Amino acid sequence: MKIKVLTISEDILGANEEKARRNQGRLDKHDVLAVNVMSSPGAGKTSLILQTISGLKQKARIGVVEGDVASTLDANRVHELGVPVIQINIPGGCHLDANMMENALDNLPLEDIDLLLIENVGNLICPAEFALGEHKRAMLLSLPEGDDKPYKYPLMFTEADVVLINKIDLLPYLEFNIPAFHKAAIGLNPKAKIFQVSCKTGEGLEDWFSWLLDEIGKMKRG
Amino acid sequence: MKIKVLTISEDILGANEEKARRNQGRLDKHDVLAVNVMSSPGAGKTSLILQTISGLKQKARIGVVEGDVASTLDANRVHELGVPVIQINIPGGCHLDANMMENALDNLPLEDIDLLLIENVGNLICPAEFALGEHKRAMLLSLPEGDDKPYKYPLMFTEADVVLINKIDLLPYLEFNIPAFHKAAIGLNPKAKIFQVSCKTGEGLEDWFSWLLDEIGKMKRG
Repeated sequence: MKIKVLTISEDILGANEEKARRNQGRLDKHDVLAVNVMSSPGAGKTSLILQTISGLKQKARIGVVEGDVASTLDANRVHELGVPVIQINIPGGCHLDANMMENALDNLPLEDIDLLLIENVGNLICPAEFALGEHKRAMLLSLPEGDDKPYKYPLMFTEADVVLINKIDLLPYLEFNIPAFHKAAIGLNPKAKIFQVSCKTGEGLEDWFSWLLDEIGKMKRG
Repeated sequence: MKIKVLTISEDILGANEEKARRNQGRLDKHDVLAVNVMSSPGAGKTSLILQTISGLKQKARIGVVEGDVASTLDANRVHELGVPVIQINIPGGCHLDANMMENALDNLPLEDIDLLLIENVGNLICPAEFALGEHKRAMLLSLPEGDDKPYKYPLMFTEADVVLINKIDLLPYLEFNIPAFHKAAIGLNPKAKIFQVSCKTGEGLEDWFSWLLDEIGKMKRG
């Protein structure tokens, strides 16, 4: 029975990849840069998105997709900032997939969006396996989670274009070895950009904003 | 294709439940209390297990099962305390299941164990769906994850016998509404015990130890 499941899972992953490519085609057509934001529960994805909306509102038109097992808490907070947002709830699920993303794209004004931020379900494992059609992947690792996470959740680190070390304001109260973390993360993924930020205080977010604007610019120039 | 998968998943869950019952029968035969410890990555499962070994070593014989996507970092730390430990690595997986648990039981000296602590994979979603044969489920929620987690990950809270609020030493530096969290957690699961602890300072762990000893006592008395 186990082998059967693996086979079907591979089919699903294959079908998902194909659908993801189609989603990316739609995004490309409208020059929308899509960034899949992934992390453990409570690492600060929503705070990052809210800060990014505030920081870039004069420079880019932003849209948001919120993925959660349950609740619309995060989407409500985004909505209050006047940004188009779609909430995807997946009871019994643990990650977004390309089908869900297609549904979200059907309901977003793509012609009025430069940057689509996708908040994946809080989970450091499964979301990394399912492409949505995004152009870039950003993962957050919050300081309280510990500096050993690259060893325990290697795929997420391998797949990320950007790693944001969040909650850097808590550094004085925690044992977190930043050089050791950098070494482990870069060991898995030499091309990853690593930014140290605090979505609470705003520290370090300018680097993230610059990176996003740079990528949006590349997208517009084709 | 989606329906197909759901059907097969149900078969898997059914087969898993049956295997879990058999695992529990083996544990019962040896009067071993098994506790499935679940949380997000980095919430403090390993620290809780290490503290529990230290706190109860005169009162109970402990064994440990460590579940991780990759690495043996946690098992090494348990092993250093001279406790029998089995590491289960599941590349591409996101939770322990009853088959893996059976393999672990095959390799543990059950006749010399009173309390088997099972550290599940760091994931607030999938582990709650797969019974292993455990008698009790403990979940950790660390303060930095935020007080909204019961709304976002309801199944884990519904299934837990014990909820440990960990990293309580960080309370002065965070916005975490403890009464609101209690209300949300108890709303989902009125029977859950909630303990506030710090696995770093040891604060509050006596309540957890007492609860474990009480449950071990019930197990021995049949």
